[in-house]
Amino acid sequence: MEFTISQIAAILQGEIDGNGQEKVNTIGKIQDAQKGAITFLSNPKYENYIYTSEASAVIVKKDFVPTKSVKPILIKVDDPYSSFTRLLEEYDKIASYSKVGIEEPAYIATNATVGEKIYRGAFSYIGSNVKIGNNVKVYPQAYIGDHVTIGDNCILYSGAKIYANTVIGNNCIIHSGVIVGSDGFGFAPQQDGTYKKIPQLGNVIIRDNVEIGANTVIDCATLGSTIIDAGVKLDNLIQIAHNVEIGTNTVIASQTGISGSTKIGKNCIIAGQVGLVGHIEIADRVTLAAKTGLAKSVKKEGSVKFGYPAMDHKEYLKCHAIFRNLPELRERVNDLEKKTLNLPAK
Amino acid sequence: MEFTISQIAAILQGEIDGNGQEKVNTIGKIQDAQKGAITFLSNPKYENYIYTSEASAVIVKKDFVPTKSVKPILIKVDDPYSSFTRLLEEYDKIASYSKVGIEEPAYIATNATVGEKIYRGAFSYIGSNVKIGNNVKVYPQAYIGDHVTIGDNCILYSGAKIYANTVIGNNCIIHSGVIVGSDGFGFAPQQDGTYKKIPQLGNVIIRDNVEIGANTVIDCATLGSTIIDAGVKLDNLIQIAHNVEIGTNTVIASQTGISGSTKIGKNCIIAGQVGLVGHIEIADRVTLAAKTGLAKSVKKEGSVKFGYPAMDHKEYLKCHAIFRNLPELRERVNDLEKKTLNLPAK
Amino acid sequence: MEFTISQIAAILQGEIDGNGQEKVNTIGKIQDAQKGAITFLSNPKYENYIYTSEASAVIVKKDFVPTKSVKPILIKVDDPYSSFTRLLEEYDKIASYSKVGIEEPAYIATNATVGEKIYRGAFSYIGSNVKIGNNVKVYPQAYIGDHVTIGDNCILYSGAKIYANTVIGNNCIIHSGVIVGSDGFGFAPQQDGTYKKIPQLGNVIIRDNVEIGANTVIDCATLGSTIIDAGVKLDNLIQIAHNVEIGTNTVIASQTGISGSTKIGKNCIIAGQVGLVGHIEIADRVTLAAKTGLAKSVKKEGSVKFGYPAMDHKEYLKCHAIFRNLPELRERVNDLEKKTLNLPAK
Repeated sequence: MEFTISQIAAILQGEIDGNGQEKVNTIGKIQDAQKGAITFLSNPKYENYIYTSEASAVIVKKDFVPTKSVKPILIKVDDPYSSFTRLLEEYDKIASYSKVGIEEPAYIATNATVGEKIYRGAFSYIGSNVKIGNNVKVYPQAYIGDHVTIGDNCILYSGAKIYANTVIGNNCIIHSGVIVGSDGFGFAPQQDGTYKKIPQLGNVIIRDNVEIGANTVIDCATLGSTIIDAGVKLDNLIQIAHNVEIGTNTVIASQTGISGSTKIGKNCIIAGQVGLVGHIEIADRVTLAAKTGLAKSVKKEGSVKFGYPAMDHKEYLKCHAIFRNLPELRERVNDLEKKTLNLPAK
Repeated sequence: MEFTISQIAAILQGEIDGNGQEKVNTIGKIQDAQKGAITFLSNPKYENYIYTSEASAVIVKKDFVPTKSVKPILIKVDDPYSSFTRLLEEYDKIASYSKVGIEEPAYIATNATVGEKIYRGAFSYIGSNVKIGNNVKVYPQAYIGDHVTIGDNCILYSGAKIYANTVIGNNCIIHSGVIVGSDGFGFAPQQDGTYKKIPQLGNVIIRDNVEIGANTVIDCATLGSTIIDAGVKLDNLIQIAHNVEIGTNTVIASQTGISGSTKIGKNCIIAGQVGLVGHIEIADRVTLAAKTGLAKSVKKEGSVKFGYPAMDHKEYLKCHAIFRNLPELRERVNDLEKKTLNLPAK
Repeated sequence: MEFTISQIAAILQGEIDGNGQEKVNTIGKIQDAQKGAITFLSNPKYENYIYTSEASAVIVKKDFVPTKSVKPILIKVDDPYSSFTRLLEEYDKIASYSKVGIEEPAYIATNATVGEKIYRGAFSYIGSNVKIGNNVKVYPQAYIGDHVTIGDNCILYSGAKIYANTVIGNNCIIHSGVIVGSDGFGFAPQQDGTYKKIPQLGNVIIRDNVEIGANTVIDCATLGSTIIDAGVKLDNLIQIAHNVEIGTNTVIASQTGISGSTKIGKNCIIAGQVGLVGHIEIADRVTLAAKTGLAKSVKKEGSVKFGYPAMDHKEYLKCHAIFRNLPELRERVNDLEKKTLNLPAK
């Protein structure tokens, strides 16, 4: 995509200092933007870069006065950072909404229904009785099993796999390699040492505005539903077991695992590589630090937990500070023993 | 699928209290089953739900006598819980065995051989010299590399990838995103700091009745075979490195990683996010608690290990209980030092 | 593939003891090689196996004199181990370079350009403006998004997914289920508790001779590039967040996660299940032990770190040795208190 500086200045309601008919076709950081790129200068400590920059345009503050000669065209605005963010969003919108239409061969069951302005990439699969809303992008090799429902404005990137009976809301983004609705890990031990599969007949419900990172897995419920509530953001390679429920606006970082039937509150922040046992409940606005192992429910809202087994964050840090000095503590005990060894008998 | 209450009562050998011609089309929990659903009441503490339930049918104990009026039709049996489980299994069987036939386009090499009652989903791939048994389901976009052998009654869900030369037994379930037979992580360090790939020419052997969870990876052996023995159940996002061997009926929870050439016994239980170093051996019936890091062989059958580096489970808990109180222990040492500081000299 | 013993002896410059017209079609370990296989004997402690082996041929030392009768044909060389490794490499080269041509249906945009001797498997996807070099293998169901550039001699196994704008060098191997270029995990918290997506407009650059293990994920940069430098080797199920940079010849084991904007030096060795926070820098030749959690930069080259929060490896082991004996240490403090409790007053 290519835009003139004038077009961009119009979007940002900025003033142009230079030739508005110059064109830009990409976006970059001021440190390394090249010809054809637009960038921004907000933090004064980066000012030096503007004097050597090869960028075609730089968004600057209205009152910016160069102290040396500047090659890029300037676009002057009130707040360069938020103008730049605005530009990113517009660019992203144009880029991600540009895919429309059907690339053959793409499979769709005869009784599936899809809305308007859909993109169905080559080798994508839409099963029996599927219902899909408007403005949905199903990238190449994505799979949508039978009886799945998907709302409006969703993106399923290449190779996302949605098992049968899943329900997905509006404005969801599902990245490549995500698996939604695979069987929960449920087996009944038998007397001969083997395990018998417990059928997993529930589904997964994903509400509006959820984003799911690459290669994350969400198992279906044994019965009922595994629920990912509105506004939840999941990073990559996360494990969500059967019958888990995750509350509105909770964010979870990469490689965390949540065991079966655990319920997580709203607006929680769970860092990377955390593990939660099954059948516990986490209150709203709880924070779990990276690599924490949580084996008990957290009932107090706003708690911050750390370590394994998890403790209050500050207490854990205190204990760990002593752990780091255990050799010294033991030395002090050795000394005390020496001193008291030959003490006069009581 | 839709069944009459009479049909279901016949399967369960139960007595009907109500209209046997009513129909049900789904299965649910007594807390939230709606019209059209069948559910069950086994634990008396849930009895209250039956008086407000909108379910179409409830499986109850033979001697159940309602204390208030009940809307759903009752099916009376000896053991409601096992009857319900039976129903789940039947339902699952019907649902998962319903897929048969070929959805075009599906790729199969001319010299591959497949058995009867096979399902080959659209965009599935079956390579050269592949041999597949009867009643196998190869879901859309699954990949079966050259020279792979698969037994009877297996399911490969959408996007499962089986590298060349893998051998899979009967009754195996392989979920979406599973990778079987990718190269082991073997590189020889060179004098100039680079690494030279060690060719990985072995394969993976998966015996009967194995289930492998979504996005789990099993690498092929450098030479010989990585072996997953009969009845093993693997959860999601697990890493099994080259030349690992996992004994019969061992179960492993999500996000655990097993390094190269490690051998695990029979009927072990390995929890989530556990890590095992390479080249160690684990005896039969060993349990490893969640997040354990195991750096040494475990020779005693039935051991339970925890922590990192791993210790006996009970010992670890004792040590951790003191860790949680390290500030107090240090305080006591401070006090002792104060008390002994001005003691009379020996 | 099938070779005569004579052909193999010619490659290895070895002498044949037996019928050079016999054929072999596979490679195995001396413990379990069967008819049709070639194996080797290097370590004298395995000598016994040669007298019962059913292998068709065994590579042995020039001066090897059997003490009993031997069934396999012998190929005598200076160094059996390095000859065998040589054979593995040749075999691997033949096996992996044998795939050439196009299996239909395979999708390629009209403006994409590909080099010579390419393999495009069935259901593979090559997007708009893609540029691919010579001798590249794109296995079935692999996905190459728009504007991607790939050098010579690369292999993308089945189901690898490369998002738009990624740049990949020469001689790279990308295993099944790898995701390159998915969105970084960037969200701006809003006043109402929801999160707003920060568009991720950068890309991923992968330099020459990189290998990436199955189901590993590499996110694109917010702006600029996530960079995997030449010679890096990544194991399976690894998470590389946005704007991370990994230096030349660094190797990383399975299930490790690296948070956003962290920079890792050259020739580092990072073990499995390690976690690194964002925005830190790791010097060259640093080693991180398995399961380490690293929250601070490591400035000293060649450091070895362990534990969480990470400490110097040796110090951590000292502290952990005392941790394992904390019950005894507490007992000693108890004793000291008893002894000093009734001491004469100062």
